[in-house]
Amino acid sequence: MNDSPNFHMTPDEFRQAGRAVVNWIADYYEQIESYPVLSQVKPGEVRSMLPPDPPQEGETFEAILADVDRVVMPGITHWQSPNFFAYFPANASGPAILGDLLSSGLGVQGMIWATSPACTEVETHVLDWVVKMLGLPEKFLSSGEGGGVIQDSASGATLCAMLAARERVTGFASNERGCDGRLIAYASSQGHSSIEKAAMIAGIGRGNLRIIDVDEKYAMRPDRLQEQIEADLAQGLVPFYVAATVGTTSSNALDPLRAIGEIARRYGLWLHVDGAMSGTAALCPEFRYIHDGLELADSYAFNPHKWMFTNFDCDCFFVADRKTLIKTLSILPEYLRNKATESGAVIDYRDWHVPLGRRFRSLKLWFVIRHYGLEGLRYHVRRHVEIAQEFVRWVEEDADFELAAPAPLNVACFRHRGGDAINQAIMDRVNAGGEMYLTHTKLDDRLTLRMSIAQTNTERRHVEKAWRLIREAAAAVTSGQT
Amino acid sequence: MNDSPNFHMTPDEFRQAGRAVVNWIADYYEQIESYPVLSQVKPGEVRSMLPPDPPQEGETFEAILADVDRVVMPGITHWQSPNFFAYFPANASGPAILGDLLSSGLGVQGMIWATSPACTEVETHVLDWVVKMLGLPEKFLSSGEGGGVIQDSASGATLCAMLAARERVTGFASNERGCDGRLIAYASSQGHSSIEKAAMIAGIGRGNLRIIDVDEKYAMRPDRLQEQIEADLAQGLVPFYVAATVGTTSSNALDPLRAIGEIARRYGLWLHVDGAMSGTAALCPEFRYIHDGLELADSYAFNPHKWMFTNFDCDCFFVADRKTLIKTLSILPEYLRNKATESGAVIDYRDWHVPLGRRFRSLKLWFVIRHYGLEGLRYHVRRHVEIAQEFVRWVEEDADFELAAPAPLNVACFRHRGGDAINQAIMDRVNAGGEMYLTHTKLDDRLTLRMSIAQTNTERRHVEKAWRLIREAAAAVTSGQT
Repeated sequence: MNDSPNFHMTPDEFRQAGRAVVNWIADYYEQIESYPVLSQVKPGEVRSMLPPDPPQEGETFEAILADVDRVVMPGITHWQSPNFFAYFPANASGPAILGDLLSSGLGVQGMIWATSPACTEVETHVLDWVVKMLGLPEKFLSSGEGGGVIQDSASGATLCAMLAARERVTGFASNERGCDGRLIAYASSQGHSSIEKAAMIAGIGRGNLRIIDVDEKYAMRPDRLQEQIEADLAQGLVPFYVAATVGTTSSNALDPLRAIGEIARRYGLWLHVDGAMSGTAALCPEFRYIHDGLELADSYAFNPHKWMFTNFDCDCFFVADRKTLIKTLSILPEYLRNKATESGAVIDYRDWHVPLGRRFRSLKLWFVIRHYGLEGLRYHVRRHVEIAQEFVRWVEEDADFELAAPAPLNVACFRHRGGDAINQAIMDRVNAGGEMYLTHTKLDDRLTLRMSIAQTNTERRHVEKAWRLIREAAAAVTSGQT
Repeated sequence: MNDSPNFHMTPDEFRQAGRAVVNWIADYYEQIESYPVLSQVKPGEVRSMLPPDPPQEGETFEAILADVDRVVMPGITHWQSPNFFAYFPANASGPAILGDLLSSGLGVQGMIWATSPACTEVETHVLDWVVKMLGLPEKFLSSGEGGGVIQDSASGATLCAMLAARERVTGFASNERGCDGRLIAYASSQGHSSIEKAAMIAGIGRGNLRIIDVDEKYAMRPDRLQEQIEADLAQGLVPFYVAATVGTTSSNALDPLRAIGEIARRYGLWLHVDGAMSGTAALCPEFRYIHDGLELADSYAFNPHKWMFTNFDCDCFFVADRKTLIKTLSILPEYLRNKATESGAVIDYRDWHVPLGRRFRSLKLWFVIRHYGLEGLRYHVRRHVEIAQEFVRWVEEDADFELAAPAPLNVACFRHRGGDAINQAIMDRVNAGGEMYLTHTKLDDRLTLRMSIAQTNTERRHVEKAWRLIREAAAAVTSGQT
């Protein structure tokens, strides 16, 4: 029987095409500032360039790569541009891209230890490194009763923490019989939308998520948290989970972990702390104050795929008590039974998150940590904070603008004093210009501009240019040249 | 202010390191059959080769890559080996690896349309192609009321379908007030463990997942499903969701979709169909009978990351009514508001799954479809089925072995007639030998060996060798040479 034709890319074809893609990416980074940061296409424009039907016959790799330029590139918003100041960063870096490439090449499944022991053990080990790198509480080390796992996103971590909390408070009865609508979760009004989404997914109901007021710094008020817990208890409800944030998405506010943690301990709530972007700052000892009180938390997550130069997806999720998490998410069908699992000597990460299958995501994190070393990572975090603080001073010194919230780290919330319409017009104008991209939030119901200064390649000159563009846009807008 | 030192990999360093990784992968595929398929390391062996603390200073890329060989490779189970017959495949291919590499290089977030329109539009478009390629019902096309999205895994798809079903039946009240323990889901005893996990996560409770008996082919019995629904209704419970499987994980059984779908329609249940591996067979018109009745389903998922040569993660999830899914998972914080979303003219995939952030995963699927063409994809699927059917005949012709279940496609369940201990010993022996890797299941409580014949590079000669190794192991085991 003839095994040809084959259709597969041969190793030599892969070498050639692979080199072409590597060079394409290197060229891209060299030219990235020549693209408009925010894609300027209209809805449907990208699709209109694609044929309605899939190809019957295969095409050359050159043809495919040419269509990346022709079809895809106009529809790209350049998250890796040093002029990207929108949302939070989603940083790539050379070592991360290549670690991920190696993961794709190996193509292993790490659902259980036995299906590729290195995929599990490198992950556990590197996450222990991360505990030390950030100075996190030792209870999150795998050598004790805790441990870390890579999740797809902070949303996944928030959900898994809420599920473990739900099972802990119900004695694992919700897993068996479902929820009963009496469990109550807590987060501040500045908490991430994924907390509300988790409450929906987990069968808690968003009506059972209590939104706690914030103080003038947009941080959760512990007194209000305690009052709300007391009020819920008085109604016979069951407080079970509080989500605190280190660096809120909107304004980078720091919730007071210690005070919240003490309340969580007192009332038996699971405290989950989300440091999605800002957790990375703890690489530098001078910023570790943001985690003060974290030893009172049951779980913690931050995303190297935001500020730590590690490609999405890479959320590091730590728990103090891995047994509860595992018991919450464990299932063991016959076809996954194996000696290593039954010996109890290994970790099976399938039981630490929602999906069963999992890639070798720790490779890219391992590559990043080894390429930069602690020294290199700290250097860039410090630079970003330093430049952001300089931006803050420029805002404060300009009579037309004001700072809208404290800026403890690398995010500046600010606004033109002319009101919402002016700020909206400024934002639209700078983003349409293509030279930079920033986004907004609302604080105290007022439209507020955000500069998130943390992209891998952002340097002082990019922020300087951004501030010039913002002021030029303000001048044009306020003089009516819209 | 001096912007050096920098620590980043320069574009030229990236070109060089990237070429090294591309060549490493090409070499790996050339040598892959020289590795033991199943990793032979002991628990802790990989970790013991890693330093206890992270490096203070950065290291060279050569040093990092050398440690991949030294530390990682002994702990790899080679899913990409043509001698991998375990579980289900997790196929990589050249175009998929390079599509994923490009996605890493671009590093965009596709959480909403505006954050990179191409990431959303290529995905929607390619998933419409997939509907046509597999001959799926037209209601899953984005041009009507349905549409497709890439999920991380079939587990994610099963969960999202269950959540949408939960909200449909409760009029979106569960999202608001939480679950009430009265909703009942259904799956066969051969359904995937992710159904039970979804019932736990979604607040339904696994006690409210009814396990329906199967027939002699291990397919769900529709009569038993109907009886169980009636019994639950009689108790005042609320049947809401049934999961059917096209190609069960254990024995590749095909649930009768039409009969199940008619019952689902009659009682108002959401029918989710999981074709994780076997759905790919529908690329070939002669295998499309497996989806007979799929037009009665509310949602469908299959994984190009299993049999369709597209690296994990890439689960294609289709819904007939996207509005219900979106309403189930939608959240809209101020910092994600934008004109395109508010115009209603675009898709924001953040509302189609659990995570907020998302990679440009459709690139690899687009690359695979264009590289192979329908012709190339069909060729390999047909070859795998053909070889598997040949394996089935070898088993049937051997007096010492028996087929344990029908083998409609590419998975053969079989056993030695000597009983469980003999089969366990055969499996342990062939897996320890390193020349192949297969796993087991239980059918009718008897240990059953599985040959899943679908790895990208598996050809007839690999299966021939596997059968020889299995028979040699059987001979050794039964003659006492263990």
